[in-house]
Amino acid sequence: MKQKNSYKTAEGILFTDQYQLTMAQLYYRYGLYDNKVRFDYFFRDYPDYGQHKAGYCIHAGLEWLLNWMSNVRFTDKDVEYLQNHKDRTGNAVFSEDFIKWLRENGHFGTISMQAIPEGRVVHPNEPLVVVSGPLAICQILETALLNELNYQTLIATKASRIREIVENGLVLEFGARRGAERGAIAAARAALIGGADFSSNVGISHELGYPPKGTHAHSMVQVFITMGMTELDAFRAYADVYPDECLLLVDTINTLESGVPNAIKVFEELSKKGHKPMGIRLDSGDLAWLAIQAAKMLNDAGFRDTVIVLSNELDELIIWQILSQIKNEAPKFGVDADDLINRLVYGVGTRLITSAGAGALNGVYKLVAVYHEKEWKSAIKISETDAKIPNPGTKQVWRIYDRREKATADLLSLSNEDPQDMQQIILRHPTDRLKYRKLTPEEMIKCEPLLIDILKNGKRVAATPTIEEIRALRRGDVKALDDGVKRLMNPHVYHVSLTEKLWAEKQKAIESAKENG
Amino acid sequence: MKQKNSYKTAEGILFTDQYQLTMAQLYYRYGLYDNKVRFDYFFRDYPDYGQHKAGYCIHAGLEWLLNWMSNVRFTDKDVEYLQNHKDRTGNAVFSEDFIKWLRENGHFGTISMQAIPEGRVVHPNEPLVVVSGPLAICQILETALLNELNYQTLIATKASRIREIVENGLVLEFGARRGAERGAIAAARAALIGGADFSSNVGISHELGYPPKGTHAHSMVQVFITMGMTELDAFRAYADVYPDECLLLVDTINTLESGVPNAIKVFEELSKKGHKPMGIRLDSGDLAWLAIQAAKMLNDAGFRDTVIVLSNELDELIIWQILSQIKNEAPKFGVDADDLINRLVYGVGTRLITSAGAGALNGVYKLVAVYHEKEWKSAIKISETDAKIPNPGTKQVWRIYDRREKATADLLSLSNEDPQDMQQIILRHPTDRLKYRKLTPEEMIKCEPLLIDILKNGKRVAATPTIEEIRALRRGDVKALDDGVKRLMNPHVYHVSLTEKLWAEKQKAIESAKENG
Repeated sequence: MKQKNSYKTAEGILFTDQYQLTMAQLYYRYGLYDNKVRFDYFFRDYPDYGQHKAGYCIHAGLEWLLNWMSNVRFTDKDVEYLQNHKDRTGNAVFSEDFIKWLRENGHFGTISMQAIPEGRVVHPNEPLVVVSGPLAICQILETALLNELNYQTLIATKASRIREIVENGLVLEFGARRGAERGAIAAARAALIGGADFSSNVGISHELGYPPKGTHAHSMVQVFITMGMTELDAFRAYADVYPDECLLLVDTINTLESGVPNAIKVFEELSKKGHKPMGIRLDSGDLAWLAIQAAKMLNDAGFRDTVIVLSNELDELIIWQILSQIKNEAPKFGVDADDLINRLVYGVGTRLITSAGAGALNGVYKLVAVYHEKEWKSAIKISETDAKIPNPGTKQVWRIYDRREKATADLLSLSNEDPQDMQQIILRHPTDRLKYRKLTPEEMIKCEPLLIDILKNGKRVAATPTIEEIRALRRGDVKALDDGVKRLMNPHVYHVSLTEKLWAEKQKAIESAKENG
Repeated sequence: MKQKNSYKTAEGILFTDQYQLTMAQLYYRYGLYDNKVRFDYFFRDYPDYGQHKAGYCIHAGLEWLLNWMSNVRFTDKDVEYLQNHKDRTGNAVFSEDFIKWLRENGHFGTISMQAIPEGRVVHPNEPLVVVSGPLAICQILETALLNELNYQTLIATKASRIREIVENGLVLEFGARRGAERGAIAAARAALIGGADFSSNVGISHELGYPPKGTHAHSMVQVFITMGMTELDAFRAYADVYPDECLLLVDTINTLESGVPNAIKVFEELSKKGHKPMGIRLDSGDLAWLAIQAAKMLNDAGFRDTVIVLSNELDELIIWQILSQIKNEAPKFGVDADDLINRLVYGVGTRLITSAGAGALNGVYKLVAVYHEKEWKSAIKISETDAKIPNPGTKQVWRIYDRREKATADLLSLSNEDPQDMQQIILRHPTDRLKYRKLTPEEMIKCEPLLIDILKNGKRVAATPTIEEIRALRRGDVKALDDGVKRLMNPHVYHVSLTEKLWAEKQKAIESAKENG
């Protein structure tokens, strides 16, 4: 993806909201632009899909954000647009001196960043990314940061839910045609991080090193039929061109009366020539029932190890239902349910790429500290609901593992605290004074800091992970979750707690903000 | 947006699904790649948002699709990716002769296209775009076409619903931070087409010639407070830098006790200096109630013509509720409801850019005809549900206006039929043989063909419309809809009918497909 300065205007540094620039100019005019500040990126709630809800998220999008940050600059075109922007009285909105400053300083080479690495399990109200740097620059970054991380985390989370429900089954991301325009490209990456094995999207799959998957559509069979040939002719042509990857879509005419019998004929012809047929795809109807019947027919014909790809508006809940139905019904037809489930492949499109039921992650980017008079001061916004008050100051996030090697809680501390040194850890509920939990060192086997240094003054200080490394983090973290947290519906609420010191700091900041209101 | 050959791999011609390429290779190998075919793009159902549902859609995305089509080519990098793609036995998936063919012929310069222009009201099961050209090339186009048109139509439709409910109120698109990565750029355009007046997204707004809108965030007030100053200091600074566009966000501390009084103070100071204050923004709490109270305070202070911007999870239903509440409650507080409603501005973010409740348009691209043995033959797919069987052949779409100048039905005909020559028009229900309606020429004032020629063999034959022209089409078409069709909930079902001849052609194609199955 690296192509220096090749961004179109809409995708470059002006991929931001207008108020970031008007605020930046105000900071410039008031000499505050260079004041060091700190913003936290965090989300407030897990995606709620309506009938079901997430109990954890998979952090994703960071590398693409970093790549964008390292490449964008104010171009001549950008500057021209800003110069020509007039207010309602006809005066320029942006002054020439500010624009000159932007041209020289409007880049992210001055930003420092800590982050929880991509692929890790994350929870509400803990900082996933901590940005520090000059006030005006941190502000301009907000929109692109939220855009990239909110969306990729949303999709990676949905993909992880699908991954968990299918266990070892192969998951293919098929959503480009129903995705939000070129956001579909980021979705393919996020899906791979979250749990998809491959995507049908050709370009991005190759860029990421995962060969794209796909065979044929109904239209191919239709072309043959319209020209006076048959479904069988179409299948034979496909087998001829792809003898070693012959996967046939069997529902163009009638799945069990035409598609599967024709597929079996072609598989027999392939086998005689020494090729191993790959399988079939079902794209309509009662997928569980059809899969059982098709499996029976394939088994009877001796093609026990062909795969059966399922597609058509799948998501974690629909897959769960298909699996339950197969477990109940397959034995009645003489089909071993586990055998059948082991040969299933899932093509997941619309409902993955749109995160159906929860189309956005409510991630926010909040000012938490300002460096003023030679010290970091906690910033806070008084909100009408306690839960919306961000945790102030400079923090670390710790993940505590119990003796079962399961993650039992995430703990937010001040950055100079280390729970590993504590005799006893008090886990404070973030808003309810009466709720807390105590942990002794004997009850935990590990207490791991999650935020790591990514950028120092614009310089990358952490290695760039491969997608495979990111996926490995995801696998490990999801494995360390209690089953209750992974439950599709009404998941157990994972604890995100504060240390005593951070709790006290938060109360102090709230009081101070109320006084200054 | 024109930048020849500057697309990254993921955004270029490989922004397609793998099966389009595997099918293209099969067509190449079987000498079918150059056979002329026709595909229809249409959607099956209006977006259903759960509690409410669309009764019409606004067609959008076409110009961006055309721009992409005219620019993409197989690049060296694309070719290298395809060459290196191996099947499971280690053989190349794509042969060198096919790749050579792709390199020479893999572009859209051979495509012809008819389309209903962007901005027009459209309905289910009528072709919005008709693509004809060589089979292999039409197939490769599918993914990008669906991706661009499905998403932009989805968002333009949502924006139009918001536009209709706010009547003349100003609508601002604020969604970039919650959009699907760079799909947020297309969303800003689609929102402008559908009914938003402006967007906060800087780059794309400038590219489209609509100045981006925005003022300041909570963080600006927080910065001042954290540095020992006050909300009033922050507001004064903002007024100082933007005296003629002073719009203040008043809910950082307490809207009515702090934000509005401080804004009024600043407005008074501005007025004394001869500037006209712009208004306030409310971003949390009970927006209707706060708007009434804030209006009262602003009115009492003499600032009757300042605007009140509302934001925070707005959509058409929530705005509808806010408006009802204002109509009921404003008079109780001595505030004229209509006056207040006339000064409202709506910042609509997440729920617009995600089309909350209906995250995808179910648009499809279906083979409808194949040119074979010197004639066009209708292609059809037998589906398990009647409603999913596409209308075959080469068609025109007509919009029939009754004597009230309202659109009363869309009529699909064969392309050589002209309803204007008919003594009596039979409007056939697309699937139910028993349902039809008769119209005489006296009952209609106009019968307008909607599909126009856009491309002939890759050459543009229709003028490129400006966004303003597209918006004018949308305004006219929405005005010509019955109020029942525009109703937010349970809209009246607009008729999309077939002529007698097309109905007969469809029956013939179904029979023929069943025989050949």
